[in-house]
Amino acid sequence: MTSPSELRRDPVSGRWVIIAAGRSKRPDEYRTERRSWVRKPGPFLFCPFCSGHEAKTPPAIATVPVPGAGPGDSGWRVRVVPNKFPALTRGEAPIPHRRGLFESMEGIGVHEVLIESPDHEADLPDLPPDHVRGILSACQDRFRSIEAEPQYAYIQLFKNKGPEAGASLSHPHFQIVATPIIPKRVEEEINASELHLRQTGECLFCRTLGEELDAADRVVRANGHCAAIAPFASRFPFEMRIFPRRHSPYFSSASPEEIAALGDVLQTVLASLRSLLDDPPFNIILHQGPHPARARELWPDIDRISHWYIEIIPVLTRVAGFEWGTGFYINPVVPEDAAFFLRG
Amino acid sequence: MTSPSELRRDPVSGRWVIIAAGRSKRPDEYRTERRSWVRKPGPFLFCPFCSGHEAKTPPAIATVPVPGAGPGDSGWRVRVVPNKFPALTRGEAPIPHRRGLFESMEGIGVHEVLIESPDHEADLPDLPPDHVRGILSACQDRFRSIEAEPQYAYIQLFKNKGPEAGASLSHPHFQIVATPIIPKRVEEEINASELHLRQTGECLFCRTLGEELDAADRVVRANGHCAAIAPFASRFPFEMRIFPRRHSPYFSSASPEEIAALGDVLQTVLASLRSLLDDPPFNIILHQGPHPARARELWPDIDRISHWYIEIIPVLTRVAGFEWGTGFYINPVVPEDAAFFLRG
Repeated sequence: MTSPSELRRDPVSGRWVIIAAGRSKRPDEYRTERRSWVRKPGPFLFCPFCSGHEAKTPPAIATVPVPGAGPGDSGWRVRVVPNKFPALTRGEAPIPHRRGLFESMEGIGVHEVLIESPDHEADLPDLPPDHVRGILSACQDRFRSIEAEPQYAYIQLFKNKGPEAGASLSHPHFQIVATPIIPKRVEEEINASELHLRQTGECLFCRTLGEELDAADRVVRANGHCAAIAPFASRFPFEMRIFPRRHSPYFSSASPEEIAALGDVLQTVLASLRSLLDDPPFNIILHQGPHPARARELWPDIDRISHWYIEIIPVLTRVAGFEWGTGFYINPVVPEDAAFFLRG
Repeated sequence: MTSPSELRRDPVSGRWVIIAAGRSKRPDEYRTERRSWVRKPGPFLFCPFCSGHEAKTPPAIATVPVPGAGPGDSGWRVRVVPNKFPALTRGEAPIPHRRGLFESMEGIGVHEVLIESPDHEADLPDLPPDHVRGILSACQDRFRSIEAEPQYAYIQLFKNKGPEAGASLSHPHFQIVATPIIPKRVEEEINASELHLRQTGECLFCRTLGEELDAADRVVRANGHCAAIAPFASRFPFEMRIFPRRHSPYFSSASPEEIAALGDVLQTVLASLRSLLDDPPFNIILHQGPHPARARELWPDIDRISHWYIEIIPVLTRVAGFEWGTGFYINPVVPEDAAFFLRG
């Protein structure tokens, strides 16, 4: 089977793009879509992620059962399924094609959905802490499984909440995407961390967290294992990063204690965002180094320079021409003020 | 006078951010702002850019008079004014401060507004061609003037149309921003072009345009001096780039014929977008190399590797977690199909 999507590389910026040819849209579909942006989608009668609608998704890859329930699709708390309309599809490592300056390859990869709860209205800050740990551990399990397939160069976990943040379904869910090449942004972060290691002998992320904790005025929430920061150079109002305190290169290597601590920080800061900003749309994004086996070829010290962290971006401002042209962002909220408000 | 804004550098990504401290907002202001997104702003009775309201803006830096009218604020066709709420303010070259990993500097720069017409409802595709030439020539004049001040490392021209594209005022206008440092995205493009010159002896942008014209199926509109392309690796549906055919490093060096040809292509492709996609929000962005004097220190061949071009990004999809995390974009419209539709 050939993939319905294609990866293309821009010769000027070096940026890769996924052209989702299989679901190409006609211009009139955008007219309808634009009008639908102004409506906040309510619960769907036919939501494919709701309890009782399991047959509307492809069969589950993994489930977390309700405590005390038997295995299987009934009585689940968390459910991981393949994305029914994937941006990338599983396959062998793709072979790059080149015609003059234009490089492309088949859209090979992984695209899965993690349904956070059978309840359409569930909101992460309100779930029992062991349910949140179940979500995060299920993500770790999926990462470990995908890490066993070396054709996938990078694995990403993210969540889009609200249509303004790119969510097409309102039932709470995370997505896992694995790409066959190392994204440029990831390469840049790892290169910066490698340079810092060479110059100072320490991990750039550990150092950044240390300086943020010393400065203290941008710390939003901290516990024994994790800390949430309004970063010094936040691009967006009320942006946050959650770092594990211990140097931990990959999310799959986080300990159960770190996962529990991450769940605590996540629930607290998302509850702050919700009450402070009237339930804003947001994105949650996991950052870490490329697939360990692939990364080691390029960065022999990958375990010392990769350090997973989570980014939370509330969608309150628009990306405009200036940002697209320069990569510079204009943030109208001072990060120290953001942290002050978010601490409540 | 100290600038009301500050530039801060993120130690991980190396990205600079403008923290607009002077106009810092409280969380409750975002609640109001979010609700106002769903309204499409109509003509404002008190629009500061409308004819007769000239006193509501700072005094004009430049005006293009109505043909046959005298100079001054009455009878203008195009008017350039300082931004009343600037992201960056004029001053001496700022001195970087560093505290541990955290680098910052005063928000020195230029932020001007070019009002395209005294008419609130004017739309660029409908203006007389000589009016469009007047707009573009006035931009060139401003660029030449700012290029005489070497403390500004990069000049950018952009237009945000519609609130979804980041426009806060609906009266048609462009913005000109000059930054005291070279933006990372610009540096990346110029580095890619320098590498291409070393490897092949030719300009990367000339070559890209040449290959696009040869392939032909992504060409949207071409005339004797300029061509509009739906780029091979478009990030967004119906994205376009307009290149001058002649190698021309800086926008200020475009000839009157090239400006007239650019006006023709701009008017045609914006009219296509408007009719095809029901007047969508969009951004227009000018790309070129850094300030010639500053650039020459870093890239001695700057005149051979910088090549100005215009990017048009319709705002039809949302940037979501995957894009923020990887820099990879998912585009559901194949660029060849986009060009087909845009050619009408």
